[in-house]
Amino acid sequence: MAKDFVTRKENYSEWYNELVVRAGLAENSAVRGCMVIKPYGYAIWEKIQRALDDMFKETGHQNAYFPLFIPKSYFEKEAEHVEGFAKECAIVTHHRLKPKSDGSIGLEPDPEAKLEEELIVRPTSETIIWDTYRGWIQSYRDLPILCNQWANVVRWEMRTRMFLRTAEFLWQEGHTAHATKEEAIEETAKMLNVYAFFAENFMAMPVLKGTKSPNERFAGALDTYCIEAMMQDGKALQAGTSHFLGQNFAKAFDVKFLSKENKLEYVWATSWGVSTRLMGALIMCHSDDNGLVLPPKLAPTQVVIIPIYKTQEQKEKVNQEAQIIMQELKQSGISVQYDAREEYKPGWKFNEYEFKGVPVRVTIGARDLEQGVVEIARRDNLTKETLPIEGISQKIVKLLDDIQDNLFTKALSFREMGTRKVDTWEEFLVEIEKGGFLLCHWDGTPETEEKIKELSKATIRCIPLDALEEEGRCIFSGKPSAKRVVFARAY
Amino acid sequence: MAKDFVTRKENYSEWYNELVVRAGLAENSAVRGCMVIKPYGYAIWEKIQRALDDMFKETGHQNAYFPLFIPKSYFEKEAEHVEGFAKECAIVTHHRLKPKSDGSIGLEPDPEAKLEEELIVRPTSETIIWDTYRGWIQSYRDLPILCNQWANVVRWEMRTRMFLRTAEFLWQEGHTAHATKEEAIEETAKMLNVYAFFAENFMAMPVLKGTKSPNERFAGALDTYCIEAMMQDGKALQAGTSHFLGQNFAKAFDVKFLSKENKLEYVWATSWGVSTRLMGALIMCHSDDNGLVLPPKLAPTQVVIIPIYKTQEQKEKVNQEAQIIMQELKQSGISVQYDAREEYKPGWKFNEYEFKGVPVRVTIGARDLEQGVVEIARRDNLTKETLPIEGISQKIVKLLDDIQDNLFTKALSFREMGTRKVDTWEEFLVEIEKGGFLLCHWDGTPETEEKIKELSKATIRCIPLDALEEEGRCIFSGKPSAKRVVFARAY
Repeated sequence: MAKDFVTRKENYSEWYNELVVRAGLAENSAVRGCMVIKPYGYAIWEKIQRALDDMFKETGHQNAYFPLFIPKSYFEKEAEHVEGFAKECAIVTHHRLKPKSDGSIGLEPDPEAKLEEELIVRPTSETIIWDTYRGWIQSYRDLPILCNQWANVVRWEMRTRMFLRTAEFLWQEGHTAHATKEEAIEETAKMLNVYAFFAENFMAMPVLKGTKSPNERFAGALDTYCIEAMMQDGKALQAGTSHFLGQNFAKAFDVKFLSKENKLEYVWATSWGVSTRLMGALIMCHSDDNGLVLPPKLAPTQVVIIPIYKTQEQKEKVNQEAQIIMQELKQSGISVQYDAREEYKPGWKFNEYEFKGVPVRVTIGARDLEQGVVEIARRDNLTKETLPIEGISQKIVKLLDDIQDNLFTKALSFREMGTRKVDTWEEFLVEIEKGGFLLCHWDGTPETEEKIKELSKATIRCIPLDALEEEGRCIFSGKPSAKRVVFARAY
Repeated sequence: MAKDFVTRKENYSEWYNELVVRAGLAENSAVRGCMVIKPYGYAIWEKIQRALDDMFKETGHQNAYFPLFIPKSYFEKEAEHVEGFAKECAIVTHHRLKPKSDGSIGLEPDPEAKLEEELIVRPTSETIIWDTYRGWIQSYRDLPILCNQWANVVRWEMRTRMFLRTAEFLWQEGHTAHATKEEAIEETAKMLNVYAFFAENFMAMPVLKGTKSPNERFAGALDTYCIEAMMQDGKALQAGTSHFLGQNFAKAFDVKFLSKENKLEYVWATSWGVSTRLMGALIMCHSDDNGLVLPPKLAPTQVVIIPIYKTQEQKEKVNQEAQIIMQELKQSGISVQYDAREEYKPGWKFNEYEFKGVPVRVTIGARDLEQGVVEIARRDNLTKETLPIEGISQKIVKLLDDIQDNLFTKALSFREMGTRKVDTWEEFLVEIEKGGFLLCHWDGTPETEEKIKELSKATIRCIPLDALEEEGRCIFSGKPSAKRVVFARAY
């Protein structure tokens, strides 16, 4: 375990915060609730972005960019949406500073530069985008519109935690427009599958796919699909959402199209997004008491090579071998770093890269080299192996795949162990304290859900898409229920 | 010339605005001074981003992300900087909306949610970044820091034009920290060269490299390097800047480091940026009265294939041939689109892709196919050629290179023709009306520069890095001068 580093058991929340800072991922800024994403953290985010962006484009989407500011009145047009989003937000009221009028040193907003209508820094962009789509859509020939935007958004959160909940965060928001309800629902489901595929295959993080209960739905949506992951402390984390918005925004912004049948109809909408919150999920899903653990597919550096030598002659031999391995790995598309810095000792480097979660460490020792071997260390399970240098690159390529698979399998079995069926309220109250996902019958009413939340701090994370039809009785009200839903405490 | 489309000669400014909208690049939004970047425009921006980002990384830079908001007091710390940037800006004063207190329908900022200190939406990030760097830098071992950020920024411009000057724009801003003055100056020059290389080799746009006169310097910089391009109306456009900031920001934010000699010293800084303004430069540099002209290296679609047939049998043959050419081009890394839509006629498609600036159009006609030929049209010079289908892909690959070169050569000779030496004030007043770059002697004083600007609307665009030492007299004051500088009217 890393020195002076709190363990997950001691204090999970502190462990997370320290990990984020000490691994060089992010830090709190001087601006309340806003973080600085440091180069190492941002490099992981870039890998996430690139992989997702490729998938969005493969599924026919294009990127565009819409304004940061939204006129206040836009939020007033969709009644549910305003409730959810226009309350805690950053409000721009002036466009100029002037020297202080009381003569003291400093600046103040110029009263003469007060905006006629306040501007809200976007908390999400449905309103401004649907206002724009009105000009893009006349007939069914203009549909579908499949746009995505990579952007920053601001929600004035009271309690913030780096990556998990920050006032400003980075995300992508897809906004699509369709001629039919069926096509919009299909899009909503398709993008949920893209998110689930990404979470499982790139982040090595198993997710449940489901829909939200009405209480947990996106403000303005008819249906919200989500992916939910289990963190190592047993809490749930919503990792992505895809919303079927019906015709709500088309009606609010008067977006109609002439159908093939020559009728004027309102357009159908979806929106879907994931954010830098995924970074929090990634960290909490795999990391351990020795620091960050990264799945190879998202690690900025997949392999680090560290030389050990004493004499100048040894140094040259080791360097030479390192160059060969580096070149071979690069040709296989592996990102590899050779840390030959002399001001740091090998032991210091071992700790450094272990803490930063580099998946594979190759140590080339001058003595080992004489025997034709090198040492390979895996970050995921902390095992070491001495292997012949002959064919080492292919072995490393294979090893990276193994690590990716192993992280997923480990996280999956952790989730499976933490998922249980619970049938009584008494049992529920006991089990929820242990964390994890509780599969329970629920009577389908918001009142029951509210009550359960109030008494246990647990919410319905999702109604799984693959939930079996099964007769049962609501754990709280005892009323009949046709399938189990997933309860958990959540981030 | 495209129907109903104003020519450059008729009205250059209107030509530009219409082109941007009709080619689907961008449009004005409902938010004052903010534009919507449409998918086709954004696809070009993504190509620009990718190429620049690769170059930044090759030169050792990493990306990071800093907060959107900057506390008002930060701007008060660097005296010159505040003058330049904190005046016309978006000021956040509240963090919550509430129902209107007069009982009418609608929302208003909640007086109880007034911020203690106003937040400024970043117009540029030197202040927040140098406040952050203080925590990252202790000793010379922590230097250099070579960070870049891709972000949106806001400057409350009174007169806006899409891409060229908008209240919100997208850009990258590099912010580096160095142990020595020499190293910082070297970095400033290096990044100017990166920008110049990008402009000339990707945008096919020749640029002058130079430094700004004190009047035109970035607020807070000791020296500003820039690249300047000439647009088709003879006006200059500043396409990128790289600033040597000295120790100004280190002093304002108290950023010191322990040198190798164990002395506490202030850190040296640079910053450098290009923005979506490059899109405006790209459009104005090459486009013509038929619409957009794109250099192949930045065209989202480099080649479009359009089929012409009458019978079903012909259609199949044409389709088959198109698939073969597409596959070959894709294998060569060319982005190619096959437009087989039946609801649009070939003539309509010809106009569409011509207007959108797709560099090469391939028309596969059933009749031509019988002769073993296809028609190739170049967007840059609007010429057509009938060529054997045998080996057509290699020819297209070669043709794209030729088009890239031709656009650069054409722009370069345009600039050369529009650049003249002027030695008297009378001549200057006549020549400046004709547009272009005037190489003139200047006495080096801000007063003369101001006066010339007042009388002619021309500014010093740059003092060329390669300016020859040459004795002369200032065109305005007649005082001695040692080299010529570049005067022009500018965007």
